[in-house]
Amino acid sequence: MDPGPELLAVMEPLRGLLGTWRGSGTGVYPTIESFRYLEEVRFWHAGKPFLGYEQRTRSPDTGLAMHAESGFWRVVGPGQIEAVLVHPSGVAEVSTGTLEGGRIHVATTTVTTTPTAKEVTAVTRTMELAGDVLAYEVHMAAVAQPLQLHLTASLERVA
Amino acid sequence: MDPGPELLAVMEPLRGLLGTWRGSGTGVYPTIESFRYLEEVRFWHAGKPFLGYEQRTRSPDTGLAMHAESGFWRVVGPGQIEAVLVHPSGVAEVSTGTLEGGRIHVATTTVTTTPTAKEVTAVTRTMELAGDVLAYEVHMAAVAQPLQLHLTASLERVA
Repeated sequence: MDPGPELLAVMEPLRGLLGTWRGSGTGVYPTIESFRYLEEVRFWHAGKPFLGYEQRTRSPDTGLAMHAESGFWRVVGPGQIEAVLVHPSGVAEVSTGTLEGGRIHVATTTVTTTPTAKEVTAVTRTMELAGDVLAYEVHMAAVAQPLQLHLTASLERVA
Repeated sequence: MDPGPELLAVMEPLRGLLGTWRGSGTGVYPTIESFRYLEEVRFWHAGKPFLGYEQRTRSPDTGLAMHAESGFWRVVGPGQIEAVLVHPSGVAEVSTGTLEGGRIHVATTTVTTTPTAKEVTAVTRTMELAGDVLAYEVHMAAVAQPLQLHLTASLERVA
């Protein structure tokens, strides 16, 4: 097995995210029915100053695909994070934030959307990493609603 | 083998992209040395109204990682395409365009970037699909240069 390139020193603060994670979460928003989901997340690196991020969710009832996301996370200074993430519904998040211990918090500086996408105006993401457990919350301002809790999930490392 | 979900009818016009592609390309721009790259691209679907897109390039000389991209492609009407793509350098492209025969052409409606990213103001992407060959061009306006050819590549389907 090729071990692949080494993680760059600048990316060491995010080393704990590398791997594949599985778990479940719940979604709430004033304009929709609350829902549950199963999730798989993968963070990878290529020896460059970023982590790649891929996320897929599916219904716990039917097993069918629900949501997906992909993007990249960067460490740009001591405790300073940037992220660019896209959703298949036509939403692009550009975010900045902080890393303190196992807590990563980013907020969008801009959200841009394709013409057919739902209106999303702000997203914040908080991840809490504790060993092989990764918990997160996503807050979202969308469809004329103020920024508020949208997603809560807890994942365990599986690889 | 689970064959997975069926491709949605609305996504049929992009069926020919599904799979894994490998090949090589060249990059040019007035502000940099020209370069060559090896590339692998994967388009996937989950039975939802989008294709997922992952791209990685590496140096033909050293084998080391160069660039990466990920994102999603949507068919939103007859011959009408939307795309959201991100680069690890902190660039997010939101694009609209057209599909005619095997030719897909999209242009950014917005390009947004993180604070540390290079300035990119516009990107166009043209893909020509002919069976198991996928050729593309990327034009880019960046670092105060006008929109112009940046990348040319030809890929072959490997899976």
